[in-house]
Amino acid sequence: MAKKTGEKYDAIIDAAVRVIAEYGYHNAQVSRIAKEAKVADGTIYLYFENKDDILISVFNEKMGRFIEQCRSNIEAAVTMEEKLYALIHTHLNHMAQNPDMAKVTQIELRQSNELISKGIGEVLKRYLVLIDGIIQLGIEQGVFRPEIDVRMARKMIYGTMDEAATSWVMKKCKYDIVSLVEPIHNLFLYGLVRR
Amino acid sequence: MAKKTGEKYDAIIDAAVRVIAEYGYHNAQVSRIAKEAKVADGTIYLYFENKDDILISVFNEKMGRFIEQCRSNIEAAVTMEEKLYALIHTHLNHMAQNPDMAKVTQIELRQSNELISKGIGEVLKRYLVLIDGIIQLGIEQGVFRPEIDVRMARKMIYGTMDEAATSWVMKKCKYDIVSLVEPIHNLFLYGLVRR
Repeated sequence: MAKKTGEKYDAIIDAAVRVIAEYGYHNAQVSRIAKEAKVADGTIYLYFENKDDILISVFNEKMGRFIEQCRSNIEAAVTMEEKLYALIHTHLNHMAQNPDMAKVTQIELRQSNELISKGIGEVLKRYLVLIDGIIQLGIEQGVFRPEIDVRMARKMIYGTMDEAATSWVMKKCKYDIVSLVEPIHNLFLYGLVRR
Repeated sequence: MAKKTGEKYDAIIDAAVRVIAEYGYHNAQVSRIAKEAKVADGTIYLYFENKDDILISVFNEKMGRFIEQCRSNIEAAVTMEEKLYALIHTHLNHMAQNPDMAKVTQIELRQSNELISKGIGEVLKRYLVLIDGIIQLGIEQGVFRPEIDVRMARKMIYGTMDEAATSWVMKKCKYDIVSLVEPIHNLFLYGLVRR
């Protein structure tokens, strides 16, 4: 229905990230997003059906590009350990480079609004499938343990990175989140138990 | 200011969990909570200042009791491996036994409302300190690796359990979440890499 490309579309997406990060989703007025994007209020409705559609589009645009970057960094890495490192580094570095977007994904998108959870579900699933791929490849190559439950390992990897990002946002992005990549990578690979 | 004990207080807390789980926090009316608790609308305000105060109190009451149960189960377990198992089992079993509360903590409490995040922060911190205690004890006893970053291990443990709980709630609590305890425990202990 509404068109989803073009310079104005991109400007609205970027403006929405800034406005939602600053005011919170519930208080982010469409007119404020229009003003920030330097377009007329009515222009927004050529591209988006409503505010929910803006939030869903923000996530899908930004996350879509992030997944492609992630995929390419994982492919470029050679060993399984390096591939897992590339995943964690891309995820946390993406947060560090885009603190406004981090606030939107870690806080504003965690809503009970079912329309929104459905709208972002497909792209989020593509990311989880990418994580599954690393675990499966590691098992096939004999680097990761054959008895690993892939779904559970994905929950561990995604859950830990997500928790690291959320606590960083809650602490107002005050410390260097990229410094967490190394210890997280080490825990995923070797676990807690001394050998 | 408002008193925080008594039969009616408990009835309101339990009613609030059910109403918030069913209607979502934003649509949960105080009058509906009163009706569900079988008290007059005005009675609510003898115990709570407003709806935010109800949500914060729900979390603190339920989480407070959960933490005590967790602490006692961890103390009763003998080896470090068993203590870690007790933590994961108590967490996921608590979700399984209280699906309405799970919906409240995993979805409704993830809000950008700063008053709410501050209100629940102290009790949540007590839980994180409990997790830290297990990791530290494991290192002291020489069972866990001495080079482990305690803060990061806590993010892994809490983040994974939290992600497991959230995806279970998103899937309408349709599968047995307690069956995830074993594979999660195994991953925390031994990590991904084959030895």
